[in-house]
Amino acid sequence: MAIGIGLDVGGTKVLGCALDRAGQVLGELRLASVPGREGLVGVLATAVAQLVDGLGARAGDVAGVGVGLPGLVDRDGVLHETANLQGVEGLSVPGALRSRLSPLLSAGGAHGAFTLAADNDATCAAVAEHAFGAGRGVEDSVTVTLGTGIGGGIVANGQVVRGGRSFAAELGHMVVDPSGPRCGCGRRGCWERFASGTGLAFLARRAAGEGRAPGLVELAGGEVEAVRGEHVVQAAREADPGALAVVEEYGSYLALGLANLAEILDPARIILGGGLAAAGEVLFGPALAAYAAGSRRGSGPRAVPVVMGELGARAGALGAGALALGVLS
Amino acid sequence: MAIGIGLDVGGTKVLGCALDRAGQVLGELRLASVPGREGLVGVLATAVAQLVDGLGARAGDVAGVGVGLPGLVDRDGVLHETANLQGVEGLSVPGALRSRLSPLLSAGGAHGAFTLAADNDATCAAVAEHAFGAGRGVEDSVTVTLGTGIGGGIVANGQVVRGGRSFAAELGHMVVDPSGPRCGCGRRGCWERFASGTGLAFLARRAAGEGRAPGLVELAGGEVEAVRGEHVVQAAREADPGALAVVEEYGSYLALGLANLAEILDPARIILGGGLAAAGEVLFGPALAAYAAGSRRGSGPRAVPVVMGELGARAGALGAGALALGVLS
Repeated sequence: MAIGIGLDVGGTKVLGCALDRAGQVLGELRLASVPGREGLVGVLATAVAQLVDGLGARAGDVAGVGVGLPGLVDRDGVLHETANLQGVEGLSVPGALRSRLSPLLSAGGAHGAFTLAADNDATCAAVAEHAFGAGRGVEDSVTVTLGTGIGGGIVANGQVVRGGRSFAAELGHMVVDPSGPRCGCGRRGCWERFASGTGLAFLARRAAGEGRAPGLVELAGGEVEAVRGEHVVQAAREADPGALAVVEEYGSYLALGLANLAEILDPARIILGGGLAAAGEVLFGPALAAYAAGSRRGSGPRAVPVVMGELGARAGALGAGALALGVLS
Repeated sequence: MAIGIGLDVGGTKVLGCALDRAGQVLGELRLASVPGREGLVGVLATAVAQLVDGLGARAGDVAGVGVGLPGLVDRDGVLHETANLQGVEGLSVPGALRSRLSPLLSAGGAHGAFTLAADNDATCAAVAEHAFGAGRGVEDSVTVTLGTGIGGGIVANGQVVRGGRSFAAELGHMVVDPSGPRCGCGRRGCWERFASGTGLAFLARRAAGEGRAPGLVELAGGEVEAVRGEHVVQAAREADPGALAVVEEYGSYLALGLANLAEILDPARIILGGGLAAAGEVLFGPALAAYAAGSRRGSGPRAVPVVMGELGARAGALGAGALALGVLS
């Protein structure tokens, strides 16, 4: 069975997986990121070499390499806008990798014929959850990745919805409150200003600054500006009233955007992924309750279920590999 | 060439078209609606009979009948929720039509083999604009229909995005301001509370009630509550300052939702249709300017163009017929 290599590029590290078309993980690694174009291409090539090496006798089955990148990636795999990587905008990742990987994959026995793919990291996570995770068995899913910002991926009719330029599913830049804080994108009140990890910290500091969350200020060493999302999750676990109120507020904003996605896309499932999803029930319980209670798609016969992702931090790498294998297109 | 019959059901009338796969109109009619299930099915059957009759020698080429309905329509063509039609919820429109149309279309020479389709009316309009109108030549478009409410349709990868239950593209129920007025759907600040015809009237009456639009109150015979959207368009054409301010406000809300759709779906085009679109430049000029200036997808190399629909009031009927012909699926 054909094997894919998937690489997920973050600001500080690259996660890699080797997988088959069923999503079975055959190898895994983590490397530190290296800045700049040459650095990025070098670390990606190293990761592929190590993963191929680890496959032993099956190295010859490697049919494709996919890369998930933190930014806008066009249909040719060119990285356009990225907040987390320096000096790599305009880079065609498949183009730069092809010559580096040709000898390697030929040497591995792949006869020179391999697929190279690159896409937005959240799109990759959505592909993996749809194919191998919480979206298995449906044709239409939306994955929302909650981290520093909010990203996502949309699958409709069993195909990835990329849009005309492949920049679709910038879910975090859906404005949910035009009187909200200014966003880096130029608008006000984008969903990720409230419902990402950064948004949670914003809501927490606002509450702390208004004297509504003394427990959080104490946890942060007495400094309002030092309050972070982690403090909210920690204090909410201990039933701190100020933290619980912030979690409620966070939940109402998360629910707002989820209900919008349900109305716009009516997916069979909305899947929550990304680093923040690991916070679990204490953070997402109130959000899911607000979603269920507050919208016509939240409950009842026409409900769009919101579920937690199943693939955790591996989702991006698995999805990049799945794209290289053509599991979804 | 196969001929499709498309019927667009409104609250007061049914528009019908006969068309070929290229979108060429071969016949057209308008009938008054008749209330209730039997009334609806009867008027649809009558419309088909008259359109088939009008085709003369080509009557035998009719290969399908499609119906656009004002409400939530599931994948089986069952109408679930409708604000404009009485007593028809739960009706399977293709099911009810099949027995009525079989003798008719057989008599017409169609050998009994014809397709029946039913879908949301705005989805039908989107199909028509994508296939025959302002979306010709692209794979990804979003059509926003502006009328009493806001509906829409999404085409991605050349296919209609219907979602798991076929209730997708309820674009008017995207919340754009959670502190906005209550909507019939249960949430606050839905896009259609501001950016539909009803929304325009709401903004105008609010301005009038606050003394910001004396010209509109005068046009409405001195009654704030009598101010309607038509008064805004009329007064704005005459450069009434209060009306122009309402048009600006309307434009900012319309632009807000358009930019959200650009971020979520990155279509090659966003197309504005529906009855309100006929108001033209005086209403949409400021909206398009706000869209271009206010978001990262409004202008520049990654802009998502917003264009006016080309098919006018015929779009729904044409799209229903196109679905019956399988022009899009």
